[in-house]
Amino acid sequence: MKAKRMICFAAFAAVTLVSTAALAEMPKYVFFFVGDGMSSAQIQATEAYLTTKNGGKATEAKDLLKGENRLNMSKLPVQGMQTTYDAHALMTDSASAGTAFACGIKTMSGVIGMDDTKTVSYKSIAQLAAEKGKRIGIISSVSLDHATPASFYASVPSRGELNTIAKQMAATGYDFFGGGGLAATEADSIKTQMQTNGYTILNDRKSILALKKDPKSKVLCINPTLQDAAAMPYAIDRPETNLSLAEMTEVAIASLLTRKKDSKRGWMSRDEGFFLMVEGGKIDWACHANDAMATIGDTLDFDDAVGVALHFYRTYPSQTLIVVTGDHETGGMTVGHATTGYSAYYDRLLDQTSSFQAFGMNEWKAHKEANKDGYNRTSPHNLESSTEMLGLMKSVFGLEWASLNDYQKEKLEYAYDKSMSGENDNTTDENKLLYGGYEPIIVTITHILNERASIGWTSYSHTGVPVPVFAIGPDANRFAGFYDNTDIAKQMAKSMGIWQQLPIVKTETAQ
Amino acid sequence: MKAKRMICFAAFAAVTLVSTAALAEMPKYVFFFVGDGMSSAQIQATEAYLTTKNGGKATEAKDLLKGENRLNMSKLPVQGMQTTYDAHALMTDSASAGTAFACGIKTMSGVIGMDDTKTVSYKSIAQLAAEKGKRIGIISSVSLDHATPASFYASVPSRGELNTIAKQMAATGYDFFGGGGLAATEADSIKTQMQTNGYTILNDRKSILALKKDPKSKVLCINPTLQDAAAMPYAIDRPETNLSLAEMTEVAIASLLTRKKDSKRGWMSRDEGFFLMVEGGKIDWACHANDAMATIGDTLDFDDAVGVALHFYRTYPSQTLIVVTGDHETGGMTVGHATTGYSAYYDRLLDQTSSFQAFGMNEWKAHKEANKDGYNRTSPHNLESSTEMLGLMKSVFGLEWASLNDYQKEKLEYAYDKSMSGENDNTTDENKLLYGGYEPIIVTITHILNERASIGWTSYSHTGVPVPVFAIGPDANRFAGFYDNTDIAKQMAKSMGIWQQLPIVKTETAQ
Repeated sequence: MKAKRMICFAAFAAVTLVSTAALAEMPKYVFFFVGDGMSSAQIQATEAYLTTKNGGKATEAKDLLKGENRLNMSKLPVQGMQTTYDAHALMTDSASAGTAFACGIKTMSGVIGMDDTKTVSYKSIAQLAAEKGKRIGIISSVSLDHATPASFYASVPSRGELNTIAKQMAATGYDFFGGGGLAATEADSIKTQMQTNGYTILNDRKSILALKKDPKSKVLCINPTLQDAAAMPYAIDRPETNLSLAEMTEVAIASLLTRKKDSKRGWMSRDEGFFLMVEGGKIDWACHANDAMATIGDTLDFDDAVGVALHFYRTYPSQTLIVVTGDHETGGMTVGHATTGYSAYYDRLLDQTSSFQAFGMNEWKAHKEANKDGYNRTSPHNLESSTEMLGLMKSVFGLEWASLNDYQKEKLEYAYDKSMSGENDNTTDENKLLYGGYEPIIVTITHILNERASIGWTSYSHTGVPVPVFAIGPDANRFAGFYDNTDIAKQMAKSMGIWQQLPIVKTETAQ
Repeated sequence: MKAKRMICFAAFAAVTLVSTAALAEMPKYVFFFVGDGMSSAQIQATEAYLTTKNGGKATEAKDLLKGENRLNMSKLPVQGMQTTYDAHALMTDSASAGTAFACGIKTMSGVIGMDDTKTVSYKSIAQLAAEKGKRIGIISSVSLDHATPASFYASVPSRGELNTIAKQMAATGYDFFGGGGLAATEADSIKTQMQTNGYTILNDRKSILALKKDPKSKVLCINPTLQDAAAMPYAIDRPETNLSLAEMTEVAIASLLTRKKDSKRGWMSRDEGFFLMVEGGKIDWACHANDAMATIGDTLDFDDAVGVALHFYRTYPSQTLIVVTGDHETGGMTVGHATTGYSAYYDRLLDQTSSFQAFGMNEWKAHKEANKDGYNRTSPHNLESSTEMLGLMKSVFGLEWASLNDYQKEKLEYAYDKSMSGENDNTTDENKLLYGGYEPIIVTITHILNERASIGWTSYSHTGVPVPVFAIGPDANRFAGFYDNTDIAKQMAKSMGIWQQLPIVKTETAQ
């Protein structure tokens, strides 16, 4: 009898697995989070830092494993991994990776929403979801016409065509854009065009936050303070008048959730839910510059935004799908260094108060300006005698000269000479390896600060390591396993009931 | 009517999920593969190399994604990720990581099968499986008394207690040991003890392979040629008279599968299947030395062994569970480098014919011996004038002097001087960073060869990045998700029907 029942159950099992998949409720609200340049090393380093910041030790498993010291993304129940290479590179760029996520195709680095011949344009899952009646939101901490956000609305042969990209953005009809500004040279006229197209453009914290109570249907929310290339400042540099990525996500949810009926566009009266893409774009920029604390700060900011989505998920658990991943690793970041071996010292990162970028634009710029006239290139090694510069290293990075070993001091002296004398020619083999085009003294400071914490870097570019994926919600199991980045678009399309097989060629003329 | 049926199915779904899990057939044959020091970077670099070796391009997604260019482990249907830190270190060692896998507890680096107070001993899942009647096999490419294999049978406060470890190994009663030899100083007497305990010791390829047709119940199979610390040579150095890890796995399966009845030990007459642990131990050693080709060679050798298990799985799909992972990352290996940016050149690795180790023991040793008398330390930079050494770099590593940039040449000259003059003091800050205790010229050769291929390293130690897990077979879904390394022991215990909750304290006196 028992054997019979077992057989009966086994038979049911096979049937039911198929049936439940087919009958499972399709998620109405879909969040897609992309940590640009974020892979396992960035995540682990951030958790080790968080553990230390929360008063624990990054060397104690019991502290590292505490829930409060784990990122929201790490705690999602479903985990997968994706290969990131693009059509013709082991190290993808954000344009081809974004296109893989958005359109489900492999393309060349630099190309957005088109194939590698740069002749065929493809629809993004955001566009397809919009056609199905979903409201669409796009958030990025870098400019909204940058490669990753652009992949969800634009088709251009080159990511550098910012004006074309921004014009395509203005024509999307998407409901929410927020984060950084527009880097396009014609940003002003494009914004005017957006207003003509029905968008409200908000540029201050108060008005943007007001959307949470009084949402509008088409808005462009640009943080008041932008740092570089129309991007939000690094999270560790954020002025209080700006919104964090988490706050912007809250505003986006409020804006996307309330849907007013539209008599002209029939489908809009049905509440089909939303698709919201949130990019932590400056994780990548911090990694390019090999600045661990700027990386960690933006990873935390990004993960806080995941936390906002999780809060929403708890209200609509059967209707909300959250997928979190990175588009590639940047910097060849590692959680270990030759100088520290088996020891980790994340407390050494606690006193960095600015990103490499803010330091370069402020303290460093002032220091160089004030000292360049008296600087004697023929007699190098002037750093040790510059109490001002040693003071800046201490006050901005928490890096104490006396704590450094001779080899570290030597490298800082050497880099300081290069920076003061303006010898930063990135075509020489030595400079290319040591500084990668960044200001020699600044990148050497972050290298040494990072290695002292036990964090290493091997590149100023993207690398080809696979990237983890985390997911929760109905259909989250689609994102388990080891697959290609193009599969993410395909699975999200299925999750949103875009039944056609991706990729889908754009038939209309590109805008 | 339709709605009703849907509800009916949904109700069944919940019930069935529980029921099928409870009723699913427990895997009779369990393989646990540990790539020591292997994480995502090692796997991706190996696949990029394999793609190139198979005639494809490591820069073309269509080639990288071809099945033949993916490792067996990458193709397993279930994928997870584990945190690797131990009780008191972000960077675990192999002893504490092995203990996590084997006993389900966090302990201190260096400790095997005991807690971090070094006073309480725990049973390994291998011992528990043996008590349930499973036959046990332990394979490692390093010595069989090394940390990872030892974790599955020994309890000692320090991994350095090799004689104690080897004596505990001799007393296990496990059915199969194979791979490297014993590093214990009392190896000879311990082997005699093993023979007294009923073990057949085989030491040549022919006799070991003969076990496939005529298996024995208790065997110790030691490869005839061992390279360093009683370990098998790196796969790229393997003499034809040795067995690969894959061949040793085939022999182990044959030995473990056939079970003769034993009148004295009743439970042995029931066929409870087996548990086989296979360690690719020298992946780690190659990574410590920052030698990418030795790493890749041993990762391929390890993955071939996974292939053997997969072949077995295809014969017994409903009864075989295969779990593959690494215990930690080693070397801070990355799939990108500052000198190569977004380009990858894995073809530059194709001509390396020996590991750093074999080169050091052979060609380098002879060269240094022959040239040390005439070596003039006061006039450095002798490498460029040494046609012999340039010839060795070309013939052994495929590294052509003329192809190098000036900065690379400078670093090789500098390291050559250090090596020739014996100035390899690993306590100086510079040497510690540049050479990590390895022969300066050799580690500089592999660094530069590797960076030219687009592979970077940041450490000579282990790092703290999470490590992927791959699985196939009944119960494989236990290994999906993001969890701790101790969970692997707990899940494997459940899969093998060891119903007690891990960890389980050893009550008998330690041997």
